[in-house]
Amino acid sequence: MLQSRQPSGDVMLHFAQFGAGRIGAIHAGNLASNHAATLRHVIDVNRDAAAALAARHGAAVSTTEAALADSQVNAVLIASSTDTHADLIIAAARAGKAIFCEKPIDLSLARVDACLAEVDAAGVPLMVAFNRRFDPSFASLRARVLAGEIGEVEQVIITSRDPAPPHRAFIGSSGGMFRDMSIHDLDMARWLLGEEPIEVFAYGACLVDPMFAEEGDIDSGMILMRTASGRMAHINNTRRAVYGYDQRLEVFGSGGRLIADNRTATSVELADARAVARDKPEPFFLQRYAEAYRAELTAFVSAVTSGTAVPVGAADGRQALVLAEAAVASMQQGGPVAVTPP
Amino acid sequence: MLQSRQPSGDVMLHFAQFGAGRIGAIHAGNLASNHAATLRHVIDVNRDAAAALAARHGAAVSTTEAALADSQVNAVLIASSTDTHADLIIAAARAGKAIFCEKPIDLSLARVDACLAEVDAAGVPLMVAFNRRFDPSFASLRARVLAGEIGEVEQVIITSRDPAPPHRAFIGSSGGMFRDMSIHDLDMARWLLGEEPIEVFAYGACLVDPMFAEEGDIDSGMILMRTASGRMAHINNTRRAVYGYDQRLEVFGSGGRLIADNRTATSVELADARAVARDKPEPFFLQRYAEAYRAELTAFVSAVTSGTAVPVGAADGRQALVLAEAAVASMQQGGPVAVTPP
Amino acid sequence: MLQSRQPSGDVMLHFAQFGAGRIGAIHAGNLASNHAATLRHVIDVNRDAAAALAARHGAAVSTTEAALADSQVNAVLIASSTDTHADLIIAAARAGKAIFCEKPIDLSLARVDACLAEVDAAGVPLMVAFNRRFDPSFASLRARVLAGEIGEVEQVIITSRDPAPPHRAFIGSSGGMFRDMSIHDLDMARWLLGEEPIEVFAYGACLVDPMFAEEGDIDSGMILMRTASGRMAHINNTRRAVYGYDQRLEVFGSGGRLIADNRTATSVELADARAVARDKPEPFFLQRYAEAYRAELTAFVSAVTSGTAVPVGAADGRQALVLAEAAVASMQQGGPVAVTPP
Amino acid sequence: MLQSRQPSGDVMLHFAQFGAGRIGAIHAGNLASNHAATLRHVIDVNRDAAAALAARHGAAVSTTEAALADSQVNAVLIASSTDTHADLIIAAARAGKAIFCEKPIDLSLARVDACLAEVDAAGVPLMVAFNRRFDPSFASLRARVLAGEIGEVEQVIITSRDPAPPHRAFIGSSGGMFRDMSIHDLDMARWLLGEEPIEVFAYGACLVDPMFAEEGDIDSGMILMRTASGRMAHINNTRRAVYGYDQRLEVFGSGGRLIADNRTATSVELADARAVARDKPEPFFLQRYAEAYRAELTAFVSAVTSGTAVPVGAADGRQALVLAEAAVASMQQGGPVAVTPP
Repeated sequence: MLQSRQPSGDVMLHFAQFGAGRIGAIHAGNLASNHAATLRHVIDVNRDAAAALAARHGAAVSTTEAALADSQVNAVLIASSTDTHADLIIAAARAGKAIFCEKPIDLSLARVDACLAEVDAAGVPLMVAFNRRFDPSFASLRARVLAGEIGEVEQVIITSRDPAPPHRAFIGSSGGMFRDMSIHDLDMARWLLGEEPIEVFAYGACLVDPMFAEEGDIDSGMILMRTASGRMAHINNTRRAVYGYDQRLEVFGSGGRLIADNRTATSVELADARAVARDKPEPFFLQRYAEAYRAELTAFVSAVTSGTAVPVGAADGRQALVLAEAAVASMQQGGPVAVTPP
Repeated sequence: MLQSRQPSGDVMLHFAQFGAGRIGAIHAGNLASNHAATLRHVIDVNRDAAAALAARHGAAVSTTEAALADSQVNAVLIASSTDTHADLIIAAARAGKAIFCEKPIDLSLARVDACLAEVDAAGVPLMVAFNRRFDPSFASLRARVLAGEIGEVEQVIITSRDPAPPHRAFIGSSGGMFRDMSIHDLDMARWLLGEEPIEVFAYGACLVDPMFAEEGDIDSGMILMRTASGRMAHINNTRRAVYGYDQRLEVFGSGGRLIADNRTATSVELADARAVARDKPEPFFLQRYAEAYRAELTAFVSAVTSGTAVPVGAADGRQALVLAEAAVASMQQGGPVAVTPP
Repeated sequence: MLQSRQPSGDVMLHFAQFGAGRIGAIHAGNLASNHAATLRHVIDVNRDAAAALAARHGAAVSTTEAALADSQVNAVLIASSTDTHADLIIAAARAGKAIFCEKPIDLSLARVDACLAEVDAAGVPLMVAFNRRFDPSFASLRARVLAGEIGEVEQVIITSRDPAPPHRAFIGSSGGMFRDMSIHDLDMARWLLGEEPIEVFAYGACLVDPMFAEEGDIDSGMILMRTASGRMAHINNTRRAVYGYDQRLEVFGSGGRLIADNRTATSVELADARAVARDKPEPFFLQRYAEAYRAELTAFVSAVTSGTAVPVGAADGRQALVLAEAAVASMQQGGPVAVTPP
Repeated sequence: MLQSRQPSGDVMLHFAQFGAGRIGAIHAGNLASNHAATLRHVIDVNRDAAAALAARHGAAVSTTEAALADSQVNAVLIASSTDTHADLIIAAARAGKAIFCEKPIDLSLARVDACLAEVDAAGVPLMVAFNRRFDPSFASLRARVLAGEIGEVEQVIITSRDPAPPHRAFIGSSGGMFRDMSIHDLDMARWLLGEEPIEVFAYGACLVDPMFAEEGDIDSGMILMRTASGRMAHINNTRRAVYGYDQRLEVFGSGGRLIADNRTATSVELADARAVARDKPEPFFLQRYAEAYRAELTAFVSAVTSGTAVPVGAADGRQALVLAEAAVASMQQGGPVAVTPP
């Protein structure tokens, strides 16, 4: 059984969390303020990080085996490094735990499919943490699209720029910019288009730092996609924006246009002899998506405890990777790549 | 007769213009592009300026007497120095010409009244050039107030800041900041409140440049006014804003709020490592109110040639001065000053 | 001693909280997430509200006497009705507790002075909760003023409009709009001017709902203030803004202008056949100042536990009331009222 | 000789204008207010339109032959239908006139090349009227890119949406959306990228109105382009935007981002119970590019009279068509199309 009941009769989720790094700390903090969840185990190869996080939230430092063997634990939160996701998902599924997993499931589509087969067989809920779907501005934009405020969707334009390149060591294991970074935007495009993309065309280049090329990666990209009925989406990405974390959505339809602009820390505006200036966008994802991280975990806990479907399923996690693979192939082959909808 | 007819039967206005300075040049240019008007005479104590302007527009350099004696002339445009306005208005009225006069009619209320008595007796149209009423943004805001978009007006807030102090020589003859500069804002307040102010309270200070105090003037001010039913208006003024010409209106009502923000030369926005920056406001009135200068003259020509009332009458010019006088008195006496509505 | 130490040696604040209403619930929630504070007692005339809040945060429902007699308690949080503030402050001061009190201290200046004398005698910290000083946008604006970004301050303009009138029952006990609502803005003006106001002039009217006049109150007001050197401030208030909670600051100085605009729930913009539309401001103070409520309590706990001065002291609470009294007197007398700086 | 001198010695341009339609009327009006130009002949297959325009500006209704035979005429302005451009250019070149021609030169690249060969042989200036280069906001944006405000250009994003479909009769003769409409954006991309595009990929679809498909055209499109060094550009177009004429540029570089947003008729903002709303963009090109039409003609007159190069040459007109052809080919072939830079 996935669920355990409180004395009050309410269902609670008792978590084992894998990963005590930057994102892990955020998730653990959000669990702490969720009245329907507790954090029981923290597991990390970095024992100090695990110990610190566990201490802060009254959890135990643990091992994967011990955590999954704890019958009180009915949910896992996977925020460890990408290469561990698939094994942890499989182990958790076999142990019958509900699974909340940071994106991506895995960088190999074959491995993703093997993983999802196990999850299916176990019948446990798996939610892939596409945090942007839970950002208040993006969620509001989509709700208004669905409410018909702009009629039929025709074009989607997504701007997504990191403030600064990641550490060189990360690049090689990242799967490349399209799989690591654009995957979020590809998910946004699917989420907003109202139809599945059936073709992807992509340009990639190394314009920011030769380090990317040396690691076999790109740092700048543009993607086009189309759906069967002719709807179109454009994504632009770069690994460096000196003005902060540039995260914008635009959806154009028969009845108008919805834009979600960047968010800023304050609403202060300075007029001086040079210009009228407002804040730069939030510096990076920890600030920009703080509310989204909280909301996605709340949604997971709420779905699992109420027995309803998780809002971002395994198929969503898989299809975003399918599109990222197509973008990589398109860039390498120099032509559009067909994609099979889920 | 005020009007002369073209061969086509259309009425044309043939102007004598007094004043060939900065504002005069604008008005002359606007007359040149108005198909229902011609410029026949230019008069200025500076003969070179008059000659240059006359040459540019195919007019004659003239004297007041000659211009007013020209039976073809059916309208005068007064853009000369303030101390000449009243005499020119009286002379033009006696000569039966329609009168377009830069604000103010005069700095002395007694003189204004003498002047308006002559205009009344002559039965000629007199329009006082409160250009801001013709600014597209301000005019749109007021039209929307009148259309009921914000219900009943309750509060008006006017910001009006010059970019830089005038030449010292001008200050002594200006009548002081409230009569020279705030008079525009006092007119805006009357225009937007929907009721006449019956009381004025004002603070003035010299914060920008001691030169103003040495000339017996102020450079910073704040005004409050109220109407009989309790509506309120606030005006803030200064003689220096390093970021340009700050001209904003806000009207608050039972159904919402209308704001007319500053205008900028371009819509360009720069995001860089410091901020997200847009253009400063337009530098000064020549740029900010270029469209308003054109529109006010068009409105005058149109009203006179069609025989309808001019859109800003003598009483408007007078009452704005009444409010300015009250502001001066309030500042000097340290208390609110009652005002009689027109 | 105000402080008690944790086993770790860190100082903790253990609170008794008076008031379990809307604001009380916010404060209690913020205490719960503050690692240096605990909530031990909740006291409210509404026993059910007290019980619910106490249960949520693991505190005890208590009486004033029992709470103040608890030697573990070293701080009180006063969020009960205004008429109870002074007595609770005096009792807490005599019991040697650090005091965090919602504004105002009292509606009577004589009572405030009696109260502050007791606090002085007891030598306990008293912080008056002017939450707006802790709003990220307002705090950033002021920090930038202090950093010299706009040179010398010359004019301050404050817009503060409630979305909708309070319940009629509240009006009579509120002290009137200037004491209840404008007091926040008067504090903002002091905070931003860089000099103390020495004179106040105010207009008040009943434009929103006759209920206010029937209760002897106003619902619309405008205030002017000046400092000894001639700096000026304007405040405009109303009890109803159909578009939400309108909270804006503007500071104008010799080197430019800083504005803190309204905050919105999302950054979504809709362009359709009518207009290009963005979110209304946040609906009311609970949303607009959620971060400020958290930050002010953190600042109090931090100041008391570290033995430094609280950031908003008793004199600040008193002087805002002095200015509100002057506004009331000005409105009643029809002239400016002199104010003695603290 | 291209030039004729005024008595003053200043060079004047005396124009024959082909086309008296909507755009022709704008150009004729702009010529009328240009002190270095006169309009002598108006030629249009619609004699009434020609007569009306000629009368308004004191020109003669004329024939092509008569106009080109007039030795006083030293410049032609071609604003007639697209299919007449090439013949008129050739005739004017042979007659030694300076040529200002609305885009495109022709819809056939072969014909363009024949045309340009004649112009080359005649040695006359030919300016292709890409009006957007003269829009104050776009021109300012580019000047700031060239001034290095955002470092090296890496990505260009262009949004260009017509408010409503053209008449059906126009579609068939337009050359299709990419040649008729996107050609402006392709020129903008060349102008902003700082390098020539070497490859084009395009999607087209009929989403707005089946009429386009029935005429063999599209109404929605997205384009990607890349340069030799890897810079990228994206263009999105549609034939219908219910909120007006959507014309925006974004240039992203190593040092920041420049955006030119839409322009609006006023700066008025309404806050009411629904939203905070500003004006829609200008309705269409006549309003949006009014200043640009004036500035491009001024630039042409100035260049020709001073003997300097016209700011948008024949090669620019040709290369934009080359890119449009590549977009058409890409859409038809389903893959990227290589382009040879000029």
